[in-house]
Amino acid sequence: MAMRRAAGSSAIRSLFSSTFSRNLHVSGEKKKIVGVFYKGNEYAKLNPDFVGCVEGALGIRQWLESQGHQYIVTDDKEGPDSELERNIPDAHVIISTPFHPAYVTAERIKKAKNLELLLTAGIGSDHIDLKAAAAAGITVAEVTGSNVVSVAEDELMRILILIRNFLPGYHQAVNGEWNVAGIAHRAYDLEGKTVGTVGAGRIGKLLLQRLKPFNCNLLYFDRIRMDPGLEKEIGAKFEEDLDAMLPKCDVIVINTPLTEQTRGLFDKDKISKCKKGVLIVNNARGAIMDTQAVADACSNGHVAGYSGDVWFPQPAPKDHPWRYMPNHAMTPHVSGTTIDAQLRYAAGVKDMLDRHFKGEDFPEQNYIVKEGQLASQYR
Amino acid sequence: MAMRRAAGSSAIRSLFSSTFSRNLHVSGEKKKIVGVFYKGNEYAKLNPDFVGCVEGALGIRQWLESQGHQYIVTDDKEGPDSELERNIPDAHVIISTPFHPAYVTAERIKKAKNLELLLTAGIGSDHIDLKAAAAAGITVAEVTGSNVVSVAEDELMRILILIRNFLPGYHQAVNGEWNVAGIAHRAYDLEGKTVGTVGAGRIGKLLLQRLKPFNCNLLYFDRIRMDPGLEKEIGAKFEEDLDAMLPKCDVIVINTPLTEQTRGLFDKDKISKCKKGVLIVNNARGAIMDTQAVADACSNGHVAGYSGDVWFPQPAPKDHPWRYMPNHAMTPHVSGTTIDAQLRYAAGVKDMLDRHFKGEDFPEQNYIVKEGQLASQYR
Repeated sequence: MAMRRAAGSSAIRSLFSSTFSRNLHVSGEKKKIVGVFYKGNEYAKLNPDFVGCVEGALGIRQWLESQGHQYIVTDDKEGPDSELERNIPDAHVIISTPFHPAYVTAERIKKAKNLELLLTAGIGSDHIDLKAAAAAGITVAEVTGSNVVSVAEDELMRILILIRNFLPGYHQAVNGEWNVAGIAHRAYDLEGKTVGTVGAGRIGKLLLQRLKPFNCNLLYFDRIRMDPGLEKEIGAKFEEDLDAMLPKCDVIVINTPLTEQTRGLFDKDKISKCKKGVLIVNNARGAIMDTQAVADACSNGHVAGYSGDVWFPQPAPKDHPWRYMPNHAMTPHVSGTTIDAQLRYAAGVKDMLDRHFKGEDFPEQNYIVKEGQLASQYR
Repeated sequence: MAMRRAAGSSAIRSLFSSTFSRNLHVSGEKKKIVGVFYKGNEYAKLNPDFVGCVEGALGIRQWLESQGHQYIVTDDKEGPDSELERNIPDAHVIISTPFHPAYVTAERIKKAKNLELLLTAGIGSDHIDLKAAAAAGITVAEVTGSNVVSVAEDELMRILILIRNFLPGYHQAVNGEWNVAGIAHRAYDLEGKTVGTVGAGRIGKLLLQRLKPFNCNLLYFDRIRMDPGLEKEIGAKFEEDLDAMLPKCDVIVINTPLTEQTRGLFDKDKISKCKKGVLIVNNARGAIMDTQAVADACSNGHVAGYSGDVWFPQPAPKDHPWRYMPNHAMTPHVSGTTIDAQLRYAAGVKDMLDRHFKGEDFPEQNYIVKEGQLASQYR
């Protein structure tokens, strides 16, 4: 695909990119911005800081409209008659979130003649066909760091919920029952157990730091080893070989982005390499797992508990097997959209839009696709 | 009441206690030991380490019987026809747990002519009338430390469950729903929030240590201030006045024993001093709270979430209001009876029985009533 937005070859683009970028985004040009978020409905008005829903619109409507920009906000994102689809042909910017993702396919990119910028309010841009975006010269950026703490905290909660066997106890409480044995026979302390993270990027590191006082045996697998000082401070041991780490772990936490390398990584074969009775937490992306393999392993007991807030697709259909498998502690995709996270990613989106209008660069770590190049983790 | 087991006045007893103790427990004497635990039922055989149930009997049956002692184990503890009641008149030792407590009242102590020793497999001896036990010269001891880590971990889990609004998300997952707003509008990060513990004994300190990497504002109220070095390491600020601490806290965790001073401490008035929207975690004892005041505050929204595993009485009746109040995350009393905790408190009970048979002292920190004196926290 030609670099339409670059109006030239990628060679020319990389030579002149900086100047070129600025020329593209002439200060004062009126833009059409489309935001795709989850609906707040009756909850929208309950909390003035609830900016992440359609009604909250990231709190930037007035700011955008006062500059003459058009701002369409919707949750209607699927199919040819959806509001997203209708607005694609002339949108300059599309903002979406991982919680209610606007799937920006190659086909949609082809239709989006004016599209310059795709922003993720949050982290994780796998809802976008990044290669197609790169080929079309579209910039893709996230609010890196905006909700890493939120996700890491939530992961630690899920580890504890599984290892302490919380949910059967809760069910007893609400059902008028009292049967301590039904809970205690498979409840354990986290202390002394082996916890391994598959991926130790920003979220993985924050999780490991929070796990440190629990006196666990901490392991991590990643493409890149931490520097020795940080590794020592965090107290986690590097594992070069994922297949060698898995059988050591009582608890496995998935902390990799969804890429071509990680899609379907945890299939039947990979899960069989885990210790019998393993607990798995996945707040990364649902498609890293083979859906049926996870459900089967929970049913036959090889996996003793599975908790996460990510599914494929999202929203998860009513008949998604993870809703019904034994020993799960699933939720819709929420870990990165706490009120605190919403305020941070709304501020980050506003900052990037402001820079975009002025022709300025974004903070370097925010780029997922810049000048036709994918960020290293997506290559 | 006369000091029957001391066969003399408490003055004489305190003068000669060490020698006297040894004389009482002649090596080789056959004892009747009664254990009151929760039933394992169909779960008893699922885990060989599940020693805390009636069937598991703390794993000490063979050891006791091989020495000629009699060991009665039951969960039948209430009323005049219960197995506990029938065995009280000639029991030398009663072992119980906070999870399924044998309420050892003054009346039962009066009937227990042979009773020498009351052991709590776990921590918290408020199921015993300690003054009556002291007056009768009965030793009361716990396995101090056996499950403090278990309880502290569980408290951190409950803080996260409440602040992240986990349960509404879980309900959506199992009910085939997907409504991120219904969860996110009142989900927050723990980072940056103020967490106060009422009591910073062993469990409170372990909780504060585990909270440290979460970057909260940590406060504690206690009878005794920590030494400055420990306070600095833990990173919590001492609050002299409970009523001054309460309105500062987003999250309050109860970590005091149940004593005459703390019974009913959190009544309507005390709860009204907390910040509107406060989250409360209580794994200490249910009777520290006024049951109806908690239910009312959850219903009117002054308390935004309440989670704990302690109730009064236990087992909680089917109509206990905490089972039905909004925004709760209750469980039966389980936090201190993980498999790891069971193995530790079973070992601690065995050690104390062994010392008792040999006329040896227990580790000092285990005593709740020793030679007619209550431990300082119960005075």
